[in-house]
Amino acid sequence: MALSSQKSRLRDINNTGFGPNSSVEGGRLINSDGSTNLRKRGIPLWERTSIYHTLLKMERSYFFLSIFVFYTIINISFAIVYFMTGVEHLVGAETAKTFFEQFSEAFFFSSQTLTTVGYGRVAPTGMLTNCIASLESLLGILVFAVVTGLIYGRFSRPRAYLLFSNNLLIAPYKQGKALMLRIATYKNNHLTDVEANVTLALHVNEGDKKVTRFYPLNLEISKVNSLALSWTLVHDINEESPLYGYTKEQIADSKMEVIVNIKGFDDHFSNMVQQRTSYTYKQVEYGARFLPMFERATDGEYTLLELDKINAHEPYVFEEDAVVA
Amino acid sequence: MALSSQKSRLRDINNTGFGPNSSVEGGRLINSDGSTNLRKRGIPLWERTSIYHTLLKMERSYFFLSIFVFYTIINISFAIVYFMTGVEHLVGAETAKTFFEQFSEAFFFSSQTLTTVGYGRVAPTGMLTNCIASLESLLGILVFAVVTGLIYGRFSRPRAYLLFSNNLLIAPYKQGKALMLRIATYKNNHLTDVEANVTLALHVNEGDKKVTRFYPLNLEISKVNSLALSWTLVHDINEESPLYGYTKEQIADSKMEVIVNIKGFDDHFSNMVQQRTSYTYKQVEYGARFLPMFERATDGEYTLLELDKINAHEPYVFEEDAVVA
Amino acid sequence: MALSSQKSRLRDINNTGFGPNSSVEGGRLINSDGSTNLRKRGIPLWERTSIYHTLLKMERSYFFLSIFVFYTIINISFAIVYFMTGVEHLVGAETAKTFFEQFSEAFFFSSQTLTTVGYGRVAPTGMLTNCIASLESLLGILVFAVVTGLIYGRFSRPRAYLLFSNNLLIAPYKQGKALMLRIATYKNNHLTDVEANVTLALHVNEGDKKVTRFYPLNLEISKVNSLALSWTLVHDINEESPLYGYTKEQIADSKMEVIVNIKGFDDHFSNMVQQRTSYTYKQVEYGARFLPMFERATDGEYTLLELDKINAHEPYVFEEDAVVA
Amino acid sequence: MALSSQKSRLRDINNTGFGPNSSVEGGRLINSDGSTNLRKRGIPLWERTSIYHTLLKMERSYFFLSIFVFYTIINISFAIVYFMTGVEHLVGAETAKTFFEQFSEAFFFSSQTLTTVGYGRVAPTGMLTNCIASLESLLGILVFAVVTGLIYGRFSRPRAYLLFSNNLLIAPYKQGKALMLRIATYKNNHLTDVEANVTLALHVNEGDKKVTRFYPLNLEISKVNSLALSWTLVHDINEESPLYGYTKEQIADSKMEVIVNIKGFDDHFSNMVQQRTSYTYKQVEYGARFLPMFERATDGEYTLLELDKINAHEPYVFEEDAVVA
Repeated sequence: MALSSQKSRLRDINNTGFGPNSSVEGGRLINSDGSTNLRKRGIPLWERTSIYHTLLKMERSYFFLSIFVFYTIINISFAIVYFMTGVEHLVGAETAKTFFEQFSEAFFFSSQTLTTVGYGRVAPTGMLTNCIASLESLLGILVFAVVTGLIYGRFSRPRAYLLFSNNLLIAPYKQGKALMLRIATYKNNHLTDVEANVTLALHVNEGDKKVTRFYPLNLEISKVNSLALSWTLVHDINEESPLYGYTKEQIADSKMEVIVNIKGFDDHFSNMVQQRTSYTYKQVEYGARFLPMFERATDGEYTLLELDKINAHEPYVFEEDAVVA
Repeated sequence: MALSSQKSRLRDINNTGFGPNSSVEGGRLINSDGSTNLRKRGIPLWERTSIYHTLLKMERSYFFLSIFVFYTIINISFAIVYFMTGVEHLVGAETAKTFFEQFSEAFFFSSQTLTTVGYGRVAPTGMLTNCIASLESLLGILVFAVVTGLIYGRFSRPRAYLLFSNNLLIAPYKQGKALMLRIATYKNNHLTDVEANVTLALHVNEGDKKVTRFYPLNLEISKVNSLALSWTLVHDINEESPLYGYTKEQIADSKMEVIVNIKGFDDHFSNMVQQRTSYTYKQVEYGARFLPMFERATDGEYTLLELDKINAHEPYVFEEDAVVA
Repeated sequence: MALSSQKSRLRDINNTGFGPNSSVEGGRLINSDGSTNLRKRGIPLWERTSIYHTLLKMERSYFFLSIFVFYTIINISFAIVYFMTGVEHLVGAETAKTFFEQFSEAFFFSSQTLTTVGYGRVAPTGMLTNCIASLESLLGILVFAVVTGLIYGRFSRPRAYLLFSNNLLIAPYKQGKALMLRIATYKNNHLTDVEANVTLALHVNEGDKKVTRFYPLNLEISKVNSLALSWTLVHDINEESPLYGYTKEQIADSKMEVIVNIKGFDDHFSNMVQQRTSYTYKQVEYGARFLPMFERATDGEYTLLELDKINAHEPYVFEEDAVVA
Repeated sequence: MALSSQKSRLRDINNTGFGPNSSVEGGRLINSDGSTNLRKRGIPLWERTSIYHTLLKMERSYFFLSIFVFYTIINISFAIVYFMTGVEHLVGAETAKTFFEQFSEAFFFSSQTLTTVGYGRVAPTGMLTNCIASLESLLGILVFAVVTGLIYGRFSRPRAYLLFSNNLLIAPYKQGKALMLRIATYKNNHLTDVEANVTLALHVNEGDKKVTRFYPLNLEISKVNSLALSWTLVHDINEESPLYGYTKEQIADSKMEVIVNIKGFDDHFSNMVQQRTSYTYKQVEYGARFLPMFERATDGEYTLLELDKINAHEPYVFEEDAVVA
């Protein structure tokens, strides 16, 4: 395959944090949500998992479901303990006769203690029950301290809130072609000093080995002062580009992966934020160009950014391909 | 119009994050409060809004009003539920006979549960009512966790607390003129390593198209070690300046916009802070100079910064304009 | 005075954020605690004060006293309201007959509501009293949310925890002299990538005006990778130095001020921290050198940093001064 | 000893924050957990200890034990106060006759007040007891505010979660040797823009003094864009290296210490993180090379990082050593 030798005059880079040895790495390097396509093993799950990271990134519905389940489990556990130490030590619960009634009283007393609501209709007496209740209320405060922290951590976590176009376009640019993708902030956030970093991973054959080579893709503009509207990242496929001279078929064959990393400073979080994504060769749209995604409001007083048009593009036939057809 | 060609030898910049195409952008680019003059659409409101950002930046009175309204709504909702499951399951509320009395008892029981105050004069009995109360107290803790986080987030949010002068002055400087504006920190905060970045947006005609060109405005001093007193930002309108040779009338005609971005490190927040504003041609005061805004205290022991004088300036007649008059 | 002309070949700097015009600035620029010797006026106190900054930096004892006073005031206010709406609406407080007893019951009921402890011995009945209690419990949660945030903000506020020597020494160095000061971290913290920035402010006469000139003081080492032991900042008073050739008397006459700013990255806070101080000419110790402040532990296994020796120095007579004497 | 002169052409550095004077420093400089091998004295313990730092870094089990002990102590203290002001002022506790019963009631009333659970079975009456209870509930809120903050601070504290190999290997590299160590992130975290900084501390004899010289060790790659897999840090021992020409015995003799500092930006914390470690000459494995620690998953769809293989290496006999043997 001629591709690798053709590239030889270009300097590849080896500081991506990924190895060059394709035979030991599997599949794409970065998933499209920006996470690494990697699993770890060799140390126990709880040691290799950051519970904080996990709870921070968990889907909102699962997060609240987890809290609810956890709350129920703690209450059931304490209900069992109160039941075993004797429901007669719960003043106000004496009328409960059946197992179910007694267990219910114990369960609800537990929940009133854990949340520190403590109505007092049912209240503990006796050394042991009082001790347990005292511990449970302490536990309640600690547990809800964690939960408070987590909830705050979740919604205050600095994020870039970036929308990426679904496809990489090979679009007309100057006299030739350029690789383009488009990003936009989709919330009422505002990034400043935004930098884009695009790396190409090419899986090529060298001799009889299959290796991965990484090339930085130069952008026409790689840093903007302010990301307010959309930003089209443009990599000119000129003689400097590792993609120079690739045909539509060669791109499909190359199993290439394009890793995009955007970072900037967010005003409201007053913090650096970062978002990453990756495109595989399957997402490359050869011969296409983006349509504008913002327009002047009808009254001319402001600009309107249409987020649903982030992927909007039209086909474009390159001269050379037209000749072929 | 000669302006655009006159500028041709100056390098304009295209990394502002705004497009050059005036015909699709409407009105000023940045509002004077630093937000972008932009609206987004195309994805649902809740997806394109960061509730955290919104609640963080909301006016204080609206914020607390929102909490109050939200609190009332939750209590009314739970009151309805308790009423429907039967007020007879609320021990202590049996004396309530009329609908209004019963609903009130349900409402106040709800509020006592939500805030976990739980006096116990009214307390739940029975499986269903107990379950609801147990859930409500959990909800209360979670809701107030969010509120706690928000309140903390609001008052601990790093901000630059900068006052900008209302006007851009075209003031005498060296042999010629300079564009000046003045900033000062107005709280007991202290910024270090403060950088100013000023960009000029000019809407000019190129051929039959109206385009926006961006030019960085060089400052005499663009970085100070410490922002303690006021700081007058000075852009010398010399031959290097995109504003060189502009007359009073041309400035008014140019529809120019000057975007100012200040960033620095705040001691107390131990964080980078940033503040932005924008001036339109209407805010340019041609022929004026700032009056001092700080003075030595009468006892000579400290310096006095007079924040109400941030805009204080006196008119100044340039020689060339005087000749004309 | 020859000093100013003598300095003329040295480049002074004007990006310190302080003005050159001594006649309008009073006293020293920076206080020894690092704050600016500056007062602000012209806008109302509450607008020019960041309550957050103030409460964050307040002395611990005052802070907790403020909370206590605030707590008492709120309770008294609500006690008045409950008393006026009728103590008869507080079930359990009917036995209170005298004004004092009734007011006490109202006061303690208020405190039980505000803290959401809600024993229920005294509990609200009736629409109005219930409404007030419901509002008070909400207020309690919000107020303590602020307090929680503040307490957390106070003890988690990134700080450099640096100890500065009390004096600037003019010490022997190489063949000549150097200005030296010493810093050390005094808590179990560890700074990395620590930078020191030292600026000299000289109040000199230029013609008939008294002006302030600022000179950066070059340090032999201005950045260390890690600040673990003490660090002696050394400014060699060679021909490049604005202090070159100053005699003991001239230094005392110069009314000089040396502003020191240290910043670094703190491991535990995972944040940039910064600390500033300033020395006036009164704190300059001419002819002295620091004594070591760390030593090898007797068992040779660790190093011992003696923080009480931060100021330890011994006198040193310079040859030229000895000749004079 | 020839070593020091041999090194003379290499520039050593003195900005490590450690002094060159071995005779006053004891033992290794950095412990393997990254802390400095240093103790401080001369100011009181509470002034030289950051309680926040201590509680943040305390072992989890000790932390929760401390909370429990603290909780018990506060309750016992208040129980004593309530007991001394008279248990008869605790309504509901009148049935308690013995000292033990009365003290228990006081203790549990205290815990119910501190946690604001306030069942109300036991409730305060009388001015004094009410005052104490009112203060205790305020204290409870403040104390648990601190605890909430600490717990949140503990689990949200930005950390690098890096695993370091136990040994430094002197491994074959190019035609010669290299010093190698290996790192990997062991949790589900992801670092970007990761920089490694390696410093060699050599204790050498200069004349009759024993001094410590510091040399930066150049790495083949000292910065990676992304730390996803493992990263082997490689210092080529070529002519530029301070370790050039060292034999196995000389390394053992040198009492060398290698300080490694890694910093990067963590996505989830959105913060800079940093981790440090240090190797002594005892941890140097002469003649060995790392075995791969990641592999392609059997289905080829992802990469598998085996954390238990971080230390996996095989012996390697250098030609020169083989000749000797």
